Amino acid sequence: MRPVYLDNNATTRVDPEVVQAMLPFFTDQFGNPSSSHDFGASAGAAVRKARLQVQTLIGAEFDDEITFTSGGTESDNAAILSALEVMPERTEIVTSAVEHSAVLTLCADLEKTRGIKVHRIPVDHHGRLDFDTYKAALTPRVAIVSIMSANNETGTIFPVVEFAELAKEVGALFHTDAVQAVGKLAIDLKSTAIDMLSLSGHKLHGPKGVGALYVKRGVRLCPLIKGGGQEGNRRAGTENTPGIVGLGVAADLALKFMDDANTRVKALRDRLEKELLQRIPHAFVAGDLLKRLPNTANIAFGDIEGEGILHFLNREGIACSSGSACACGSLEPSHVLVAMNIPNSAAHGAIRFSFSRNNGEEDVDRVLEVMPGIVKKLRELSPSASQARGLQSAPGLGDNANPTTVSGPGECNAQLFR
Amino acid sequence: MRPVYLDNNATTRVDPEVVQAMLPFFTDQFGNPSSSHDFGASAGAAVRKARLQVQTLIGAEFDDEITFTSGGTESDNAAILSALEVMPERTEIVTSAVEHSAVLTLCADLEKTRGIKVHRIPVDHHGRLDFDTYKAALTPRVAIVSIMSANNETGTIFPVVEFAELAKEVGALFHTDAVQAVGKLAIDLKSTAIDMLSLSGHKLHGPKGVGALYVKRGVRLCPLIKGGGQEGNRRAGTENTPGIVGLGVAADLALKFMDDANTRVKALRDRLEKELLQRIPHAFVAGDLLKRLPNTANIAFGDIEGEGILHFLNREGIACSSGSACACGSLEPSHVLVAMNIPNSAAHGAIRFSFSRNNGEEDVDRVLEVMPGIVKKLRELSPSASQARGLQSAPGLGDNANPTTVSGPGECNAQLFR
Ligand SMILES: Cc1ncc(COP(=O)(O)O)c(C=O)c1O
Ligand SMILES: Cc1ncc(COP(=O)(O)O)c(C=O)c1O
Repeated sequence: MRPVYLDNNATTRVDPEVVQAMLPFFTDQFGNPSSSHDFGASAGAAVRKARLQVQTLIGAEFDDEITFTSGGTESDNAAILSALEVMPERTEIVTSAVEHSAVLTLCADLEKTRGIKVHRIPVDHHGRLDFDTYKAALTPRVAIVSIMSANNETGTIFPVVEFAELAKEVGALFHTDAVQAVGKLAIDLKSTAIDMLSLSGHKLHGPKGVGALYVKRGVRLCPLIKGGGQEGNRRAGTENTPGIVGLGVAADLALKFMDDANTRVKALRDRLEKELLQRIPHAFVAGDLLKRLPNTANIAFGDIEGEGILHFLNREGIACSSGSACACGSLEPSHVLVAMNIPNSAAHGAIRFSFSRNNGEEDVDRVLEVMPGIVKKLRELSPSASQARGLQSAPGLGDNANPTTVSGPGECNAQLFR
Repeated sequence: MRPVYLDNNATTRVDPEVVQAMLPFFTDQFGNPSSSHDFGASAGAAVRKARLQVQTLIGAEFDDEITFTSGGTESDNAAILSALEVMPERTEIVTSAVEHSAVLTLCADLEKTRGIKVHRIPVDHHGRLDFDTYKAALTPRVAIVSIMSANNETGTIFPVVEFAELAKEVGALFHTDAVQAVGKLAIDLKSTAIDMLSLSGHKLHGPKGVGALYVKRGVRLCPLIKGGGQEGNRRAGTENTPGIVGLGVAADLALKFMDDANTRVKALRDRLEKELLQRIPHAFVAGDLLKRLPNTANIAFGDIEGEGILHFLNREGIACSSGSACACGSLEPSHVLVAMNIPNSAAHGAIRFSFSRNNGEEDVDRVLEVMPGIVKKLRELSPSASQARGLQSAPGLGDNANPTTVSGPGECNAQLFR
């Protein structure tokens, strides 16, 4: 049976067209773009073309606003550290409680080692940022605001365009981690006050190990990686020509498939969500249902461990991820769901299904086929779940007939999240 | 006519076997190594295998001593910055005057922005480090010594094993930029006091955009790029699986071809050098002729601009590089040759020919065929050269009959360099 890959927010399959475009740059056109001979020249031209392709995807005004990096994490680190470097008199950072670890780990480190004050804007039950706290945090002490464009776990989209305007008023730089948004949402940077934006190739059917940092003209960038004068003195190190070429073609294709992402892929996601909630009791969708990436569904199945679900799904050839999993295999509930005040019992059982243009109806069918049975089996094994079901069968707390009713023992009201 | 590529110290052609090994990890096995499902597991296994391959190439004792990075520059930056982080009470760095810009630019920045004291060990006419200055610089104030294993421009090999022992005596960490040495020289780290070592994939027929940092067990590493827990918490960011797999296979192949590098490739280099010096007057080899990479020839052709030579070689389909070229296209003479006290008039005309296992006798023949004519033509056009030739025809300053005689107007004695 064809495996079902629904973990596209973790990484995507590189588009065969992208691979084809990369291939010559490993062998025939392997030159160093900085070399003055013909081997270098053809590599240099390829890098320039890719820069235009990325520029187009994100609507940057100038191609020299694009700096290629090794990925989203490096771009995030470079943006934040540069702001502190170029505005040493400002010692505060504003970010959100639900950023990726590429931002949060760095901020925690800056807090600890450099005494930087970090404001982490909280979110509500829907995962929406608290506007008043954000405004209150904005002072001339803030060097940089770093707020993601869309959350990787829930898909919640943040109002970064408006937030950037406000940051500008106090002279702070505005950076957005758009690693999950680029390629899924239309972006037109030239019409915004956003100063810096991070993106990563492997989230949009491009290669791993390559990304980009957008830096608006006029904004100084102090390089994170120092050495040779590559990338206009903004990122040292021999350019990863094949990776950069791949990212360029991936950007082209992302534009081409943007409508597909917003219609067909969204419809797949919506069907999965709707039918799972109908078939499985005590489940609800986490995230801002009004403003969400079209490809992401984060569903909390109360009273069981997400890792258990993943295990059984994997045995059925279905790949997705649990909000609670991280690179180190820890079983802590996701910081994103915790920040949304989702009770532990539900956060532990949260599963993220993330689609891409490679998915089809049959993938949804497969999940719908096996998921109810897996949840049922796990709940039967879970002591807290049996207890919960005891509670649930109390009069007035109906079961799965209506997925918008109270969804579990943890006071998680699905209505809140729809 | 087949182009002649003699710029392998700038970058190498990716071995077709390497490309083949990488391919599945773009498409069929595209999973994120950190994911717990099968897509992730197969990618994770591939990264582990590559780690063992790199471990073997550099003779590390444990595989967890290898951290994958985005290349040589990142590895160099990570090593040096980490040392300052983990030993904040030590505020000095010892390095050499002839390091790559990945080390020198960073050090200059640390000097300027953080008040770090940087000792740059000078070199003699042969490019050899001054031992007494090195010993004198070693005090308990030194956090890290960073000395390259072999110089990228001249190929000069440095006694890093001995130097590491001395650094240890004062409790300083010892890092070596081995970007040019790995794959060309046998390395057995476990028998040395070297704490950290940088390498880069694209210098050994592996892909660009991937490298590694060796960190001896027991040495703390403070990550340069912070975020997720990848690479044992030493380097955040989704692993570049195809790149890492490619580096692993490139490491395997480098071991297999090590003897070839030290015999056949060396013989090609030696023939080119010898015959060029015989055919072209006022030329000499720069570097330590007794301790040099087997693939590198840096030849200074007095009284002309290296860029001019490169231009005409390029028209003949021959790619090599001038010591004076850099990513930004500046025409400053190479800092390496300047540090060796090679007069400007000779340093300006220095050309680096760097071989690889892909080269053959026909490549040497081609260069020998065109080079004398190119140098002659350029010298005829150069006013300083005509003047020089006037000088040279003075009795006792013979021409090209003996390449070890005085080689130009700049008091550059070829004898010194042989
Ligand atoms: C000695 C040396 N160190 C560091 C580097 C930088 O490596 P990379 O370009 O992979 O970042 C190079 C090559 O460019 C080099 O020759
Ligand atoms: C929102 C977000 N930011 C940053 C990253 C890091 O990107 P990369 O893994 O390419 O470094 C990711 C993905 O891992 C992400 O989802």
